[in-house]
Amino acid sequence: MTSKVTAEEANAFLTKAFNSSQNRSEVILMEDGHAIMRLKAGPEHLRPGGYISGPTQMTLADSVTYMAIFTRLGITPMTVTSNLNINFLRPCIGEAVIAEAKLMKLGKTLAVAEVEIRAEGSDKVASHVIVTYSIPAS
Amino acid sequence: MTSKVTAEEANAFLTKAFNSSQNRSEVILMEDGHAIMRLKAGPEHLRPGGYISGPTQMTLADSVTYMAIFTRLGITPMTVTSNLNINFLRPCIGEAVIAEAKLMKLGKTLAVAEVEIRAEGSDKVASHVIVTYSIPAS
Amino acid sequence: MTSKVTAEEANAFLTKAFNSSQNRSEVILMEDGHAIMRLKAGPEHLRPGGYISGPTQMTLADSVTYMAIFTRLGITPMTVTSNLNINFLRPCIGEAVIAEAKLMKLGKTLAVAEVEIRAEGSDKVASHVIVTYSIPAS
Amino acid sequence: MTSKVTAEEANAFLTKAFNSSQNRSEVILMEDGHAIMRLKAGPEHLRPGGYISGPTQMTLADSVTYMAIFTRLGITPMTVTSNLNINFLRPCIGEAVIAEAKLMKLGKTLAVAEVEIRAEGSDKVASHVIVTYSIPAS
Repeated sequence: MTSKVTAEEANAFLTKAFNSSQNRSEVILMEDGHAIMRLKAGPEHLRPGGYISGPTQMTLADSVTYMAIFTRLGITPMTVTSNLNINFLRPCIGEAVIAEAKLMKLGKTLAVAEVEIRAEGSDKVASHVIVTYSIPAS
Repeated sequence: MTSKVTAEEANAFLTKAFNSSQNRSEVILMEDGHAIMRLKAGPEHLRPGGYISGPTQMTLADSVTYMAIFTRLGITPMTVTSNLNINFLRPCIGEAVIAEAKLMKLGKTLAVAEVEIRAEGSDKVASHVIVTYSIPAS
Repeated sequence: MTSKVTAEEANAFLTKAFNSSQNRSEVILMEDGHAIMRLKAGPEHLRPGGYISGPTQMTLADSVTYMAIFTRLGITPMTVTSNLNINFLRPCIGEAVIAEAKLMKLGKTLAVAEVEIRAEGSDKVASHVIVTYSIPAS
Repeated sequence: MTSKVTAEEANAFLTKAFNSSQNRSEVILMEDGHAIMRLKAGPEHLRPGGYISGPTQMTLADSVTYMAIFTRLGITPMTVTSNLNINFLRPCIGEAVIAEAKLMKLGKTLAVAEVEIRAEGSDKVASHVIVTYSIPAS
């Protein structure tokens, strides 16, 4: 099955919905239950030594899960994060960050996704995240 | 026991260490194992309807835990977040956000804090966070 | 407000619903949004050195949250655990274990409780748990 | 690389170290950073309707992570669970349960594993678990 929302539509939604700090991240893949975003790291995302900050990684995990849900439900802005659990495994060092979300479960009230965050070009996972969203009753 | 770092010293450290998006948050209390930060919400922290965004709350929880660790260890920039688990309980709506961290454990390798995030003036907890930091070997 | 279920009723329910390994634990307090259980430690709960095992603590946290939900909703066996996050802070050593749950949120679809596990007689928290239950649509 | 401990050695260790309620679970695979356990469900593991209980799944996730660590470090009984985060995705119904752990990270002080629990014969994940163990200083 294909995604209900294309990467272009997802990016158009994000540009309209969020503010300037988001304009360095873009959706690069939208498939059924699967989304990938890429963030070009700017000064506000970095710590001394070129490390991508923890908050940057958490924010990206949250966003890419939002997108993964859209692949199944279409654009549903009223879904909200219920829980996020992140384990920082290794330093994330690079000019860009890749966040990949795969839906583990999409029920009537909850969606649960597994997200991997890594520096672009690296095959090692920097952080591993489980993100749970509440699906509002329609 | 008093904190090893005063609120003033903590704020001076934060101003030097981080970049512009942090300049709306300040440390307002530093006690032994206990820290409180206050964030004046700006456009980059808000979602339509005046909701304080999830990422804003996660970032603040991460920062105030960092501060709570400083109250015991002094300024130790090499401590890094290992795990963060956040439950969003209620919408956080207000002009400012209060984040309060209490250390539950400070061992040789790990520090674990409990953090409550709420809108200033509200007695209801918007999000509850457990943040774990790794303490590097000295 | 008082609990919708008394400690006696809770214990009667547990005795009927679960099997023999549970008969060492009992509900000792049921108040609105607040429940306490006590487990008399048997060989199956202990590790060498008298440590109360991790699984014992997790199981007790799960049960006492179930009870805390009953204090508000009455006996609702169809509620099921959705997520459990436990941090083991200190060894739990003792002849009995106390588990205390306080509901942080009770919504239409989710209940979230904070649980502290400690050895009876100790004022130090052995493990801290956040337990989330799904409330089925009625 | 092969595991430092074979399935036979792992089972011999478990038989000696733990007590009777464990004798229905066995290690069926030990590879480098990868372990699988199988539990034959008994009355104490089941809820009405043939559901494998949450505590059974949490306990198994904890054990199989312990085994996954042994594949890299050899038999190291002093490693202890630091954190466990479980998401129950679907009911687990079956006569036996399979738990599979893969180490995501093995550092000097922490090991983090991803665990999937499913009913034997099912391709759907019943629960997804992230288990963190502390590695004691040697």
